[in-house]
Amino acid sequence: MKFIHTSDWHIGRQLHNQSLLEDQRHVLTQIVELAKSNEVDAVVIAGDIYDRSVPPANAVALLDEVVNQLVNELGIKVIMIAGNHDGHERLGFASRQMQQSGLYIIGPLTSHIEPIVLQGKQGGAAFYPLPYAEPATVRHLYDCAASTHEEAMIALLEAVTAHDSQGLPKVVIGHCFLDGGSESESERPLSIGGADKISPSLFKDFDYTALGHLHGPQYKGQEHTRYSGSILKYSFSEQKQKKSVTLVEFDADNKPQISLLPLTAMRDVRIVDGALDELLAAAENDANRDDYLMVRLSDKHAILDAMGKLRSVYPNVLHLERTGLMASNEQLGIRADHIKKGELEMFADFFSQVSGEPLTQAQQQMMVDTIDALHKSEDNQ
Amino acid sequence: MKFIHTSDWHIGRQLHNQSLLEDQRHVLTQIVELAKSNEVDAVVIAGDIYDRSVPPANAVALLDEVVNQLVNELGIKVIMIAGNHDGHERLGFASRQMQQSGLYIIGPLTSHIEPIVLQGKQGGAAFYPLPYAEPATVRHLYDCAASTHEEAMIALLEAVTAHDSQGLPKVVIGHCFLDGGSESESERPLSIGGADKISPSLFKDFDYTALGHLHGPQYKGQEHTRYSGSILKYSFSEQKQKKSVTLVEFDADNKPQISLLPLTAMRDVRIVDGALDELLAAAENDANRDDYLMVRLSDKHAILDAMGKLRSVYPNVLHLERTGLMASNEQLGIRADHIKKGELEMFADFFSQVSGEPLTQAQQQMMVDTIDALHKSEDNQ
Repeated sequence: MKFIHTSDWHIGRQLHNQSLLEDQRHVLTQIVELAKSNEVDAVVIAGDIYDRSVPPANAVALLDEVVNQLVNELGIKVIMIAGNHDGHERLGFASRQMQQSGLYIIGPLTSHIEPIVLQGKQGGAAFYPLPYAEPATVRHLYDCAASTHEEAMIALLEAVTAHDSQGLPKVVIGHCFLDGGSESESERPLSIGGADKISPSLFKDFDYTALGHLHGPQYKGQEHTRYSGSILKYSFSEQKQKKSVTLVEFDADNKPQISLLPLTAMRDVRIVDGALDELLAAAENDANRDDYLMVRLSDKHAILDAMGKLRSVYPNVLHLERTGLMASNEQLGIRADHIKKGELEMFADFFSQVSGEPLTQAQQQMMVDTIDALHKSEDNQ
Repeated sequence: MKFIHTSDWHIGRQLHNQSLLEDQRHVLTQIVELAKSNEVDAVVIAGDIYDRSVPPANAVALLDEVVNQLVNELGIKVIMIAGNHDGHERLGFASRQMQQSGLYIIGPLTSHIEPIVLQGKQGGAAFYPLPYAEPATVRHLYDCAASTHEEAMIALLEAVTAHDSQGLPKVVIGHCFLDGGSESESERPLSIGGADKISPSLFKDFDYTALGHLHGPQYKGQEHTRYSGSILKYSFSEQKQKKSVTLVEFDADNKPQISLLPLTAMRDVRIVDGALDELLAAAENDANRDDYLMVRLSDKHAILDAMGKLRSVYPNVLHLERTGLMASNEQLGIRADHIKKGELEMFADFFSQVSGEPLTQAQQQMMVDTIDALHKSEDNQ
């Protein structure tokens, strides 16, 4: 059994109001080609297929195209689970009518984890798809007391452990935040207040765990408990990351052979520092001047229409910072810090600055409930 | 070949801000039971599956459930086309991966009409699904000069006529407005300015035409060119209609035997006239006081909280008219008239009342373009 593990496609996402659909098409085409040239049996997509619960129509059309190439044209099985960005019911529509074709979409979590047992050209594997679910959902469906994401995951994994895979390797597919995982700015926190962290050791006895959520490729705890990372850089904080998909092949002892297959973006996402004149002069010899750029200008004087001037040679400057003009570098530090903070923390900061008092326990709970309700109403739109 | 023809489910629709999801579930359950008890080979749904291009998640879950009962549990084929209310890309996602299961969803129109040839328990039939499409879309895909809905339909039907069905009866599935068809207030006009009408004679040579769009069951031109009508009354203008699905069975000569299978709503939609005291007194013996009601009060004096009083005994009063209080009945007439008019006509009336001049040709065209653009942006959300 040989398969590609990928995740966090976020089809339909924008970067600073710039549609990335063509960039996504470019890189998804590479994944189809990699699946073909590596003769894989399956492609596993570990959640955040779309960027929003209601994706734009052209995002739906792109996914339809990619799935059709893999499943109908190449005869490769596709398994995908809903992540925290996906609309679970929408994504899962008519999934029971697709399975015969080799397309397995797992939208909402159900009260019974249905293993997907696939036979590859050389050996098979049992896949256990665990779509993203709030602890409250797991409590309700599995009649347990789980209040954290870790407790919820423990409840779900019981079914995986109990299932007899007839000697086939067990592959868990999940969308969660492993403790110690390295974050990027483009991920949306799974919960407020830090109750979202799961110990990587939970997965150590499974033969492979294909995870989604964190956008940088990485493993935690053991090499076979992995994030494939997103297919594109979805924030400037990811400029140093190398995006890839993970190729997994089980040997005769059910040990996974793991390698990374790099993806090449149509336009890179990077940060450029310098004085305006230097940058304008450098453009001529910059073969990648179409890249998506954040420009940090070091000039200390006022410049008329700096953005217009930059865009005349770098058409995809998405964000401009006048670092040279800033009174102190601390300001910049504070700003970047804020972006990384969750809603609760930002509000708590704001509150204490305005009122001079920290949030009380009761006030904090109120905010947690409000933010949760907002996220939920977003999902139910 | 025996099949049920239905259309205009409009799942997710509201009636005066009241969700109809439970009413829809009730009547869809009946359709599943009718399909089973009549041992049909297929269920054909001629468009307007959902009420909006982005249906709410619980509407998607309901359709998923119904489709699963028909296709997976009963082994009945389901063919559905997108209507003018549906989001074509969204509805059509992964449809190529569903066909093996017996579920045929035709979302966006394609440049080639793919016949669906089904074998029933007694004989087969060829179905030609024509999802709703603007003339501009047909012009583009079929490289023709169609500017009206009729010209567009002629272009599409050429492919149906040309196809060799090997002696099987030909069933066209469409979503359009036949000239002379009887309208209800709950339909959204297909185009502005009357270019949406299609002659029923276009369909006379096909063995059956299963249409959607008009909400009252009816045939036009010939008995086998039919609207099944919607599954529920979606406006008070439909209070006298009897909702049903159409049962079609071809005999040995490919002649369709047609009968109507009535549907029973969980709550009827009706208009009640009378004085407040009479109506309150009558409630006690009204077994159907849960119905969705429009109440027209004949009382000529002011009444404090008439709605509250009515709802204490008729919980689902959705609309109240104080006909007794109105200065003249003409006002009421004008109002009902307005509701029936399209956006363009309403704006033209408003404009001439305010400015004293009718719209010029150029102004009218501007409004047509604006209204069209608004409808399109709604679809592309």
